[in-house]
Amino acid sequence: MMTLTSERVLSIQSHVVFGYVGGKAAVFPLQLLGYDVDVVNTVNYSNHAGYGRSGGTKTTAAELDSIFQAMELNELLLPTRLLTGYIPGAEALSAVAKLASKLRRSRPSMTYLLDPVMGDAGRLYVAPDVVPVYKDMLPLATIITPNWFEVELLTDVTLKDIPSLHRALDILHKQYRVPNVVISSIPLNGWLAAALPSSILPPSATASTHLLCISSSLPSSALQSSHLYASDTTRSIVHAQCVPLIPGYFSGVGDLFSALLLAHFHQDQTPENVAASPLSEAVSQALTKTHAVLLVTQAQAEALPEEERLPTDDELDKEYPLRKTRRMRGRELALVKGQDVIRGRGHAHVREMMLWDGFWDTR
Amino acid sequence: MMTLTSERVLSIQSHVVFGYVGGKAAVFPLQLLGYDVDVVNTVNYSNHAGYGRSGGTKTTAAELDSIFQAMELNELLLPTRLLTGYIPGAEALSAVAKLASKLRRSRPSMTYLLDPVMGDAGRLYVAPDVVPVYKDMLPLATIITPNWFEVELLTDVTLKDIPSLHRALDILHKQYRVPNVVISSIPLNGWLAAALPSSILPPSATASTHLLCISSSLPSSALQSSHLYASDTTRSIVHAQCVPLIPGYFSGVGDLFSALLLAHFHQDQTPENVAASPLSEAVSQALTKTHAVLLVTQAQAEALPEEERLPTDDELDKEYPLRKTRRMRGRELALVKGQDVIRGRGHAHVREMMLWDGFWDTR
Repeated sequence: MMTLTSERVLSIQSHVVFGYVGGKAAVFPLQLLGYDVDVVNTVNYSNHAGYGRSGGTKTTAAELDSIFQAMELNELLLPTRLLTGYIPGAEALSAVAKLASKLRRSRPSMTYLLDPVMGDAGRLYVAPDVVPVYKDMLPLATIITPNWFEVELLTDVTLKDIPSLHRALDILHKQYRVPNVVISSIPLNGWLAAALPSSILPPSATASTHLLCISSSLPSSALQSSHLYASDTTRSIVHAQCVPLIPGYFSGVGDLFSALLLAHFHQDQTPENVAASPLSEAVSQALTKTHAVLLVTQAQAEALPEEERLPTDDELDKEYPLRKTRRMRGRELALVKGQDVIRGRGHAHVREMMLWDGFWDTR
Repeated sequence: MMTLTSERVLSIQSHVVFGYVGGKAAVFPLQLLGYDVDVVNTVNYSNHAGYGRSGGTKTTAAELDSIFQAMELNELLLPTRLLTGYIPGAEALSAVAKLASKLRRSRPSMTYLLDPVMGDAGRLYVAPDVVPVYKDMLPLATIITPNWFEVELLTDVTLKDIPSLHRALDILHKQYRVPNVVISSIPLNGWLAAALPSSILPPSATASTHLLCISSSLPSSALQSSHLYASDTTRSIVHAQCVPLIPGYFSGVGDLFSALLLAHFHQDQTPENVAASPLSEAVSQALTKTHAVLLVTQAQAEALPEEERLPTDDELDKEYPLRKTRRMRGRELALVKGQDVIRGRGHAHVREMMLWDGFWDTR
């Protein structure tokens, strides 16, 4: 009775006026793929932080509560899917956690993709008290998309070899009961490359030519509705893929990837490929389209006049802040220009996630 | 040097989490039509006012200034087109007016569509001190899209016969120097129907079957860059069309129409049809697509279970507020489902604006 359209996403993340990060990177792709999207802005900024300077404000926990309450009273909390991203303060995140928990209770079949946006490459860009709130939220999620650093923050495991990776995934799947974990953009460290089956590792791949993406999902036999009863011996199915690295720093890539992953995830559809899982299928689609959008973005950036694409140079950037600004501007995701790619037209090469057979037996 | 993509719209209007009014009705269509859109939210509400209850807050003038200043310092004020809609307070509107004036000075060729959202059918839904600010802003606009009531507010002319309509358009074109005026959704009053040429008035059209849309543009010979030097004898070119009325109240229709009008307006393209103007061509496109989206919306609403589409009944609505809420929800614009229509695929019948020959000689 409550379903107005077949599928409806509630997206809770940042808003920027200019450029494509957070909701600006997620909402348009979801709409293109046929989802009605309810859009909650956790900040209203002029632009992303990479520009070095921005205007606008964060949305307070009280403002979020006021929005959620009115939606509840008006019977407008109808998402079949939930997507949460950048929420910079613990108080605001707690308001979102309360809502997510309420939605999960009333809609056990809801697909919740939680992107625990906290930092990257050892640097935290939210308040430290956000970390424990995310830990508490993990059992609500259907899929999480932490980066390498965020896996370490959530599990308190330092990822330095295959046993530590086993330990971290075990904590996420069993202690936090997350059925689906996707870690994209992993630096292809030596120990990882050494452990990868040759079917996954391209011949001359190195940390400077490729990134690794790993997905890990519990077999559906281990899931009962939204609750997970995985025994100690249950092992997840792991897939991986090495993605060619596109040089230069682009913002919003993770937000686009998570939105595409949520859009393409269909728990109840059995993939044609017997080596695939519903998760690995969705990751393949999301990687394929994200990579294709980056190629359009790169081509657009390269067509700019020289002063718009000055290389990174910390000293010069400090002296002439507009150098950095112009570089950032030229690297905003080409979502509008690349919309056919997102719709699934015009890209040929599908980046298929490969089964990492024997992952749990690797030492 | 400053143009990153061919066309970039700065959209300044309301944001709602659920449903499609303001920016939610405008941004997606503009993106579908190939525009990068910079999105400033003048309010962050849970839903539109028609639901009777909403959560969230208005963006203050100080917050808007903070965003605009950061964008200026970061060289991110790059729109080739400007679109302003619902801005509920005079202070916030003044901040937008200051920005619009600055952009107009630095980019004389910028197309500015100003939708002076103030009220409808005799009821004001902004603070009264907003009206004089809009009057001051009119000379900055390339196109304005007031409704019938807003024309009266802006010109202080009561529209009751053809001479008063002449007077109002003269004030907008000459006193306020607006080159393009579009008034859509005009009730087809008896005096209007009587004055319409038979080429425009369908045989049995009445106020309960049709709405009228009028566009009025000054000939390009009267325009020099963005400034207008219309002599007292300059007469505008007027087009009109009767649009079949779709029963029921839909929100966000004007916002969608204005966005489509801006997207399709090309001042420098001479229409193939000699009776058309760049404005009338764009209005034809915008009316065609808006009407087609409404048909998709209507079909979607009619497919809902009965309790989602209870008819308006003020007494029952008062007793059971969720009656109204559910009705509103079922009538949210079907933008996502109707995206092919917006892209220009799948609609057959083009609603062509017809030249109203002899308009200025009508008494």
